[in-house]
Amino acid sequence: MEITFLGTGAGMPAKYRNVTSIALKHLEDGSIWLFDCGEATQHQILHTSIKPRKISKIFITHLHGDHIFGLPGLLGSRSFLGGTEPLTIYGPKGIRDFIEVSLSVSQTHLNYKIEIIEFEDGQIFDVGNFKVEAKLLEHAIPSYGYRVVEKDKPGVLLVDKLKEIGVTPGPHYQLLKNGETIELEDGRLINGKDFLGPDKKGRVITILGDTRPCDHAVELAKDADILVHEATLDKEMEEAAYEFFHSTTHQAAQTAVKAQVKQLVITHISSRYEKQDWVRLEQETKEIFPNTVIAEDLKKIIVK
Amino acid sequence: MEITFLGTGAGMPAKYRNVTSIALKHLEDGSIWLFDCGEATQHQILHTSIKPRKISKIFITHLHGDHIFGLPGLLGSRSFLGGTEPLTIYGPKGIRDFIEVSLSVSQTHLNYKIEIIEFEDGQIFDVGNFKVEAKLLEHAIPSYGYRVVEKDKPGVLLVDKLKEIGVTPGPHYQLLKNGETIELEDGRLINGKDFLGPDKKGRVITILGDTRPCDHAVELAKDADILVHEATLDKEMEEAAYEFFHSTTHQAAQTAVKAQVKQLVITHISSRYEKQDWVRLEQETKEIFPNTVIAEDLKKIIVK
Ligand SMILES: [Zn+2]
Ligand SMILES: [Zn+2]
Repeated sequence: MEITFLGTGAGMPAKYRNVTSIALKHLEDGSIWLFDCGEATQHQILHTSIKPRKISKIFITHLHGDHIFGLPGLLGSRSFLGGTEPLTIYGPKGIRDFIEVSLSVSQTHLNYKIEIIEFEDGQIFDVGNFKVEAKLLEHAIPSYGYRVVEKDKPGVLLVDKLKEIGVTPGPHYQLLKNGETIELEDGRLINGKDFLGPDKKGRVITILGDTRPCDHAVELAKDADILVHEATLDKEMEEAAYEFFHSTTHQAAQTAVKAQVKQLVITHISSRYEKQDWVRLEQETKEIFPNTVIAEDLKKIIVK
Repeated sequence: MEITFLGTGAGMPAKYRNVTSIALKHLEDGSIWLFDCGEATQHQILHTSIKPRKISKIFITHLHGDHIFGLPGLLGSRSFLGGTEPLTIYGPKGIRDFIEVSLSVSQTHLNYKIEIIEFEDGQIFDVGNFKVEAKLLEHAIPSYGYRVVEKDKPGVLLVDKLKEIGVTPGPHYQLLKNGETIELEDGRLINGKDFLGPDKKGRVITILGDTRPCDHAVELAKDADILVHEATLDKEMEEAAYEFFHSTTHQAAQTAVKAQVKQLVITHISSRYEKQDWVRLEQETKEIFPNTVIAEDLKKIIVK
């Protein structure tokens, strides 16, 4: 999977950081899931190879303007640019109203079906290779974090081990690979499960909405391959972070430590920080959680 | 007055032309009127000296997304950036719904009063030095054009002529300048109106929403100093322009000729045209109306 940070700023657009949006590309089929859609997300997309029609799901963390005001425009352009496949949008209660009123007032007609799912908590879907869980975080308005879990894949077929006992390649290899039992011509029964390597662990990606540090953040991030966490303010500004329901760099790092994630990406950086401050923000996060990077607009991260 | 083109594209943002917005700055007091507010208008403003808190009125031509989706974000940022003065928004029926739902869903609280005026036709205001008139154009949905009329200013006081008859400078000069009659010490009555130069003609600026050529466009533009007219398509594409309720370069020019305007600015240029095509579009408009310029994002035009 490949993550592209389309907007990494907080509250308002600034010259070098647009408001929030994150694209998660599934490299197997090219489909894209978008997390949040601040104003001018479609403008940011113009500077990438992302095709709006490849966006199949949009997950909204919370309804603050810097996370949703780019939705109506993107939905219209997705249609105009040839999008015909259905699109599902997940978000807190209220997202439906915003989308429906925006599209109807502007008489934006979409050439695709849109499904809007206003969820509250818990597992929001389990389809194909993935399930996604959402939990409420701690923000001025209901804000959610998402845990994207790729299901484990069965291990590889141990071909050498099969050949050793005289089972030669053929169509029955696929059955064995699926963990089924086959009968050989000599009457022997072979159970595929005995000839599979260890399961290939699915990847876990956690993307959180705006939040103070909280237990749900840690639960959502538990053992994740990547945790994308807001760090609106620097380590000295814990009081302001608390007051405005945000996190500091150190607090994001502490959540990463508690959840034992593999990598932390900090984003949603306040526009009070100039370009030259970014290194310091990354550095101070690393004091607590060494495998940290600070997100930047249009930066890509591959999740292996 | 100074016009800044914040967005000059059509339908969707493109790399070099954002969707529509035009800022009209009153140089006397620095106040700004915005015409339309497509997505990322506030982003474009970041590249100008415009301060969102100086925007006092917003005129919406029509409710298509490329003309309104930047409103909620701009309204929020205007508050965040210190705007406390009231703001009035004029637009067709439906604009109130869009603004109110966007602000309420996103829980955007404004530190200023907002007045939304949904008009239908005719003179929409007459305050201070200006009046503004709106008329319905010909588009797929109700689309309006605006005629901004600066009132004539009384001519200068003819000081030399007054001195000739022995009226020396003093506080009574102001009364004469206002066209009042004063009595001199020697009993003579002097009527200020007899000592004023010719009225200084107020300027007229006409800014139209998306439209096919139509009579109302000509009426709104009559004798204007500047006509801002859409020219979505080139002169060969009249049929498509008709079908999609837009104008070609030649049609914009013909309206300028009929209305006898001083200068024509074409905008709302389709993204089908590459940067190198723009000169040709301007050139072909000039074939019919020589004093034409093609708008570009962030281009400024002074209205003398
Ligand atoms: Zn935010
Ligand atoms: Zn338009």
